[in-house]
Amino acid sequence: MSKRIAIVGSGQLAQMMAQEGLRMGLSFSFLAEGGEDTCCVDNLGKVVQRTAEMSAEAIYQALGQPEVISVEKEHVDVDLLRALQAFCPVHPNPDALEKFKNRFAEKTCLRSLGIPLADFQAVHTAEDLARAFASLAKPVFLKSQEQGYDGYNQYKLTAENFAETAAKISFPGNWVAESGVPFQREISFIAVRSSAGEIRYYPPVENYHLNGTLLTSLAPAPDLSAAQIEQGKNYLTKLLEHSGYIGVMCVECFLCDGQLLVNEIAPRVHNSGHWTSKGAVTSQFENHIRAVADLPLGSTEARGISGMLNLLGVVLSPQQACSENAFLTLYGKALRPRRKLGHVTVVGHNHHEVRSQVQALRHLAYKEVL
Amino acid sequence: MSKRIAIVGSGQLAQMMAQEGLRMGLSFSFLAEGGEDTCCVDNLGKVVQRTAEMSAEAIYQALGQPEVISVEKEHVDVDLLRALQAFCPVHPNPDALEKFKNRFAEKTCLRSLGIPLADFQAVHTAEDLARAFASLAKPVFLKSQEQGYDGYNQYKLTAENFAETAAKISFPGNWVAESGVPFQREISFIAVRSSAGEIRYYPPVENYHLNGTLLTSLAPAPDLSAAQIEQGKNYLTKLLEHSGYIGVMCVECFLCDGQLLVNEIAPRVHNSGHWTSKGAVTSQFENHIRAVADLPLGSTEARGISGMLNLLGVVLSPQQACSENAFLTLYGKALRPRRKLGHVTVVGHNHHEVRSQVQALRHLAYKEVL
Repeated sequence: MSKRIAIVGSGQLAQMMAQEGLRMGLSFSFLAEGGEDTCCVDNLGKVVQRTAEMSAEAIYQALGQPEVISVEKEHVDVDLLRALQAFCPVHPNPDALEKFKNRFAEKTCLRSLGIPLADFQAVHTAEDLARAFASLAKPVFLKSQEQGYDGYNQYKLTAENFAETAAKISFPGNWVAESGVPFQREISFIAVRSSAGEIRYYPPVENYHLNGTLLTSLAPAPDLSAAQIEQGKNYLTKLLEHSGYIGVMCVECFLCDGQLLVNEIAPRVHNSGHWTSKGAVTSQFENHIRAVADLPLGSTEARGISGMLNLLGVVLSPQQACSENAFLTLYGKALRPRRKLGHVTVVGHNHHEVRSQVQALRHLAYKEVL
Repeated sequence: MSKRIAIVGSGQLAQMMAQEGLRMGLSFSFLAEGGEDTCCVDNLGKVVQRTAEMSAEAIYQALGQPEVISVEKEHVDVDLLRALQAFCPVHPNPDALEKFKNRFAEKTCLRSLGIPLADFQAVHTAEDLARAFASLAKPVFLKSQEQGYDGYNQYKLTAENFAETAAKISFPGNWVAESGVPFQREISFIAVRSSAGEIRYYPPVENYHLNGTLLTSLAPAPDLSAAQIEQGKNYLTKLLEHSGYIGVMCVECFLCDGQLLVNEIAPRVHNSGHWTSKGAVTSQFENHIRAVADLPLGSTEARGISGMLNLLGVVLSPQQACSENAFLTLYGKALRPRRKLGHVTVVGHNHHEVRSQVQALRHLAYKEVL
């Protein structure tokens, strides 16, 4: 009898988690909301489209009475997840998801745990914004507390554009303003915590974002000191243990004058961990499924060096993407501007070669698009 | 527009090839014959059940006008494949498949290429069998020329059982008798050849069979000399080039007093290459698809040491099979005695540890079954 897992969400993260779980003989169902496109998971299990009148119990039944429920995104209906806990475990737990889906709550949590991050202030009114802009380091980043991701609902405020940009923002609203950080590099740390409390850490990843969206990753991140690697692991340990978290978590950091400042937390498998499918002994997707299904965790050891290129609103054909050490993953979605359509993973033995190859693929994929 | 590939066959080999190809954005259809169980591929593309009245063109149309056709098994209707060549390429080519589906033709080909193998004779009558038994080294193995695999339709003939066993065999028939080989180890060599003629070789694999069926593999095979490894590669090169072969081929050998004697050839992805999904840079499944789809081949380099345990008529739960470095693959088939239901792959850094872990899983899976 295969264990039944339901996933809230139906995008490529749900797809890659389910593919790993199906291989192990687990079965899956998916909860889609708001008429979201479910093409990524249509062949992987039952897809339930949530409607307004469905109770938690009706949803639980429609999902096939799963033995555990997990999520693929942070923008989830936490109240629904709490109601679903009456029927089966929900991992990660809704309290943690609630905290990490709100930038202000997340930053407050980080501060309370003594984890370094940029100065920030909650902004609800135009006056709050003016006050925050005056006191924080420029440029100031204004982000929606709950609605923003991948650069959406985010503003970069400078002395030059402040008046014009601020006038475009509708108040009252729930925003958080942050000091700009003159960082040299972006590093993400990913770990998985089991129900028994065991934690396994993936090697840190160096990321490069464009327009607020991850474009490329390189793992293990080069040129980090042992102390910096320990620091990132320490952030994860505090966050995972503090929130009694089960599953994969990603912490995105700025490396700024040798100091790791947390930018944000993703309470789920993360785009900067896609390289693990090819470049780690156990992928982040399999380890998340193992954690929520109460299975022993797999090794997070890296196998050589990996690079990842996101395909955002563009695709490469297998003929273009595949080479001796490059592998194409497409999610099966229709083409739309900026949409995450797939990724290419490059594996190799040294950072320089892998990075060069990722750059060459980037130029091939984007030409004049970016 | 995704490239359309049709596969003749619908078992776990078709499943694992299609999963790799789907990830790259290729699309698949499958031809099932004789009412075979298609559960392995039901969610991976259109499945066509062949009926007696279907012409090659009707089959080609039903398969969705594929751009290339490949196979997952050697027991294929070669005449159909030849007829399908009028519509699209078929890889590997039907001439090669015809030769390697018949043990006598295969052995004759090996001999003509100067590749060492045990003495053999064709057997059609009881008199042929008596003559072969008298002249070949004992025990003599009698195998169906076309119908046998995994120990089916095979007899081990000794002085003690000859009369009784020979009396059970219906003549005339198409058989081949082989000298028994007092081998120390079984080694398989797997390679892939592209349409451009490039060949990439996986490291050799040590196999252990029980009752004629593969039970465990260890890769790269330990304790082979560089000359032996070259010898195996040389066999593959001759066979692939001689037959103008495109795709993955496996050559199973006996290691007998330091000499590699070919036991048989599998013109397809092979069970002894299942470890490559976890333990090589590119799996045999992806490389076969890359070859037949005219894509650049992927690296066949091993990543550490891998072990594989077949689940034959038994399964392990994820809780039993999964550990830090052990990974479960189930094919989704219903349980039947001896049926290939899945496999467990163990990855590690030394042969002894991986072998011990495979043995422990073997005991767990089979208890008193084997």
